[in-house]
Amino acid sequence: MSVHSDQSPTGLATPTGPTVTVLGLGPMGRALAGAFLDAGVRTTVWNRTPGRDADLTARGALPAASPEEAVAASDLTVVCVVNYDASDAVLRQDAVTTALKGRTAVNLSADTPERARDTAAWADRHGIRYLDGAIMTPAPTIGTADAVFLFSGPQDLYGEHQPVLAALGGSHTHLGEDPGRAAAYDIALLDIFWTAMGGYAHAVAVARAEGVTARELAPFAEGIAAILPPLFTEFAGDIDDGTYSGELNPITSAASTMAHIVHASEAHGIDAGLMRVIEGQARRVIAQGHGGDGFSRVVELLGRS
Amino acid sequence: MSVHSDQSPTGLATPTGPTVTVLGLGPMGRALAGAFLDAGVRTTVWNRTPGRDADLTARGALPAASPEEAVAASDLTVVCVVNYDASDAVLRQDAVTTALKGRTAVNLSADTPERARDTAAWADRHGIRYLDGAIMTPAPTIGTADAVFLFSGPQDLYGEHQPVLAALGGSHTHLGEDPGRAAAYDIALLDIFWTAMGGYAHAVAVARAEGVTARELAPFAEGIAAILPPLFTEFAGDIDDGTYSGELNPITSAASTMAHIVHASEAHGIDAGLMRVIEGQARRVIAQGHGGDGFSRVVELLGRS
Repeated sequence: MSVHSDQSPTGLATPTGPTVTVLGLGPMGRALAGAFLDAGVRTTVWNRTPGRDADLTARGALPAASPEEAVAASDLTVVCVVNYDASDAVLRQDAVTTALKGRTAVNLSADTPERARDTAAWADRHGIRYLDGAIMTPAPTIGTADAVFLFSGPQDLYGEHQPVLAALGGSHTHLGEDPGRAAAYDIALLDIFWTAMGGYAHAVAVARAEGVTARELAPFAEGIAAILPPLFTEFAGDIDDGTYSGELNPITSAASTMAHIVHASEAHGIDAGLMRVIEGQARRVIAQGHGGDGFSRVVELLGRS
Repeated sequence: MSVHSDQSPTGLATPTGPTVTVLGLGPMGRALAGAFLDAGVRTTVWNRTPGRDADLTARGALPAASPEEAVAASDLTVVCVVNYDASDAVLRQDAVTTALKGRTAVNLSADTPERARDTAAWADRHGIRYLDGAIMTPAPTIGTADAVFLFSGPQDLYGEHQPVLAALGGSHTHLGEDPGRAAAYDIALLDIFWTAMGGYAHAVAVARAEGVTARELAPFAEGIAAILPPLFTEFAGDIDDGTYSGELNPITSAASTMAHIVHASEAHGIDAGLMRVIEGQARRVIAQGHGGDGFSRVVELLGRS
């Protein structure tokens, strides 16, 4: 959906419609501000390092001279900086905290669940209405159907601002009132993503040592990646139910495969630390007497530590 | 395609059609033998531990009393055991080696490229025609369009046996004459698979510590897995061309994310060894002065070691 307000002949929205401030104009912050502008939302922008707002002001964004001026200009402030050290450095300045009082801040910066909860507690102490969020897709998806946003915090506050946030496009999910929940999903999903990328990088290094180019491997690598989604859901049921079925692929067989990978890698002098960690987890599950179970039992090993 | 030979009224194929022997009757070996039987190929079976062939003989498979009797019964022997220690233990017995002379063996057991090459060299010394192969999909896919087989070894030998091997269903790719090539692809693809599964297991452990169930995370985990295939192909181009573009996602940003994952995991007492390995690789790439490049440059770091 798009959010339109009346616009003046100059292209600047009048203050009668929704207003938003975007703090942080890296690639993602610029994409967010651009999507708000495209939807006709009056958008104020600020970045710690000046000079990042030229394209946006040309499209109608209002530049602010300071973060306190920026947050005072709108009901809703969206923060998108590198992490919560950076968002703290902006938001926890006295003038900014004061200006935010009674307004809403949505922090879309990436960090840990505990930092999200800490920021929600800080906001609560200062009378600032607070939502935490996470952006699961790259900057070019913002404003398109491919964008994926996660939110957590007060349900009613989310409902109040959803019409404006919807300008960012894609799917929006409110995960619950615990402000750390969006960050928890974010961390878990990025864990899957970067571990898979780490495995791919290692696999390509081994393939190249065997005379196979990355492009030759790629169609088959795509095939392997394509079998993951249904397996993830199947394993999720195994894990939540504690069944860990290993009928078709017991963890003993997986460990044997992992040993082959370690051996083939190290035979080329290529560090296999990643697979050594995974094989070690599998071996410990087997040593605990669960060799007939599936690999998913590693979740219990990790969770028990 | 299916391969049909004339069948006697008892359902047993006559010796005029193609013949195959399957050594090893684990879940995969039984699936292979079953697919040959379904295609009307006269199939002889043998397993080290007796008693695994009842279902197959009921469907028309011919049981052999010894591996030498088994290989002598067919032009083509398909071996599918746990690894090459196991296939050596069967094939390199004098009686079996002698019986295989002039015949073709296809080893579909999983192991390293060097074991595949060693077995090809052994076969060559004993006048045995040899193909190496790898099965990339689970036993239930065998005989269906979903099966994926990789082969390497002499092109003409592959061409000669392809009509019979096609009875196994799915896609068959001959990767080249180097007998280690199928195992190299196999190792690389299993590396991707098991590393991704390791990352998923860890992510679920962290999510559960945060009060998120595996089933709650699963739809989003599927979404993350779904973005991998095109990224793998994009990265393959970056790696082969040495471009390593980090414009949208520099490795410094990836390392920052990885540190959040490690922190969030260890804050719950959950071992983050896997992500520590990957973050360490990213930090080394950055220390080498490539912080503006993409994560794919890790392939060079690994390959250079």
